[in-house]
Amino acid sequence: MWIVDVLISEVGPRDGLQSITQTMPTDAKKAWIEAAVEAGITEIEVGSFVPAKLLPQLADTAEVVEYATGITGLTVAALVPNARGAANALASGAHKITLPLSCSESHSLANLRRTHAQVLDEARQIAGMIRELPQDKRPHFEGSLSTAFGCTIEGEVPQAKVVELAEALMAAGCDEVGLADTTGYADPASVKSMITAIWSAVGKEALTGIHVHNTRGLGLANVLAAYDAGLTTFDSSLGGLGGCPFAPGASGNIVTEDLVFMFEAMGVRTGIDLDRLFAVRELVAGALADEPLYGFTPLAGLPKGFTPATPGRVSEGALA
Amino acid sequence: MWIVDVLISEVGPRDGLQSITQTMPTDAKKAWIEAAVEAGITEIEVGSFVPAKLLPQLADTAEVVEYATGITGLTVAALVPNARGAANALASGAHKITLPLSCSESHSLANLRRTHAQVLDEARQIAGMIRELPQDKRPHFEGSLSTAFGCTIEGEVPQAKVVELAEALMAAGCDEVGLADTTGYADPASVKSMITAIWSAVGKEALTGIHVHNTRGLGLANVLAAYDAGLTTFDSSLGGLGGCPFAPGASGNIVTEDLVFMFEAMGVRTGIDLDRLFAVRELVAGALADEPLYGFTPLAGLPKGFTPATPGRVSEGALA
Repeated sequence: MWIVDVLISEVGPRDGLQSITQTMPTDAKKAWIEAAVEAGITEIEVGSFVPAKLLPQLADTAEVVEYATGITGLTVAALVPNARGAANALASGAHKITLPLSCSESHSLANLRRTHAQVLDEARQIAGMIRELPQDKRPHFEGSLSTAFGCTIEGEVPQAKVVELAEALMAAGCDEVGLADTTGYADPASVKSMITAIWSAVGKEALTGIHVHNTRGLGLANVLAAYDAGLTTFDSSLGGLGGCPFAPGASGNIVTEDLVFMFEAMGVRTGIDLDRLFAVRELVAGALADEPLYGFTPLAGLPKGFTPATPGRVSEGALA
Repeated sequence: MWIVDVLISEVGPRDGLQSITQTMPTDAKKAWIEAAVEAGITEIEVGSFVPAKLLPQLADTAEVVEYATGITGLTVAALVPNARGAANALASGAHKITLPLSCSESHSLANLRRTHAQVLDEARQIAGMIRELPQDKRPHFEGSLSTAFGCTIEGEVPQAKVVELAEALMAAGCDEVGLADTTGYADPASVKSMITAIWSAVGKEALTGIHVHNTRGLGLANVLAAYDAGLTTFDSSLGGLGGCPFAPGASGNIVTEDLVFMFEAMGVRTGIDLDRLFAVRELVAGALADEPLYGFTPLAGLPKGFTPATPGRVSEGALA
């Protein structure tokens, strides 16, 4: 094990693959996950426990979770839309489960056909299921505050509403809440302000991470603001996979490679080896023919004489 | 006139147009500049006084400068490679002239065939020429510290060398120095550290601006770091024009549209109207057939219910 300053949580196998039309073969997913861990990634959201007919790309989530939990040193995360999905996630042995709650109730109704009260009820059911497990089998349970910075239906979501929902998710039994800028509406100032407000309500331990999108190009600036404010966990997707709503060069998710480069260049240790990460990108590109990958650093290459913050990794036993 | 918190200095007509193969007709340049001013841009680098055979795209710089200086409220900037170029810039009436000095001497020799001592000598000559002008005709003279964060030949440039060159440029008679991350090697930490170091040596008034590139995707994060540190002037290029060394979606210059969106979303007033800026983009796209433009915000559109920091502008007399 080595010391890291921030946790980069790779969401490509879930958020990335659910957004593209082609389905990655299960073996390719396993190879991706294994290579990512070799590069130093220690947390991966590998799938979503949604009905296969809704997201056929993620129909193999249970198998992928079971495979990934066999890899030493990896925290295996999965998204769950409701208590039924959570039951499947628990059965598969996921280490972390994330239930999204859309802060915009209109968005929640339009996308999940659920009111806030209904989603909070699912959260309570999930927390109850977790409590029935032996202590060492309980996954970390995160409530994700999606559309926290606004949504395309309601526009801005009042900060007080997001804070109220953060409190409600914690009261329902979540171990933690996460911030998600689903729509790319956040900016560095709103990110800092939101973190401060939520911390005041639920405490610093209850919010450590953020999931930002790059819809308007502010992704890394928003991460920087969140890091400056004190968050330590950042979601990103290899190659920015999972959202290219606008061309050229636009993307939904922030790019893991650029995110890791930013932190390593700043002297902030991610534990991730950039050259190996670029190799993972090649592997994924090979498994997803014709799917555009985004990101600047892999194409520009590392600066001449670049010294990363994470010291050269020793392969053998590094993840033990 | 209205109050702004930061100055966005548009470099597209110089840095953008010099990097593409097609030459924009002079009338189209004039229309771009005029529309940009209408959108609220108050400083534009409109060209470079280099020999026309080297950069035929900018052969009309004198004419463009003369035209632009007729627009009320606009600071007209021009790049000058040496004293001869500066003489032409002075004759044309430019309000601001920028002499680049590459902090990497190897880069300076490879690109300009000049040592640091030779460039500093040009700076002294230029300062002398400026002093001979009547006080109200003297342009603002900036020495630009290019490759300040490293170069592709030498790798990292020692911070002490950059500070030494900042002092030397000020001693040579510059009114101000500027930081330029020509190669996209900067990161938020190195940006902050460099600003602090230069301020210690030459004072805060002698460094107010930075020119960053987006080569590794950190452009806006680096701007945010510089803004947090206290800089107030930021170069950018409409549509990210002027550098697409790596595809897809990579760019050299940071995109004016996204930069303005970031600040306006943060509550930082740029004085620029985003909708009018998007219209300038359309105008430039029409004048440069098949030239890819970059940027996320123009394609994603503004968030629903977005309230900019700059209040709605009143056209008539706004720039008077």
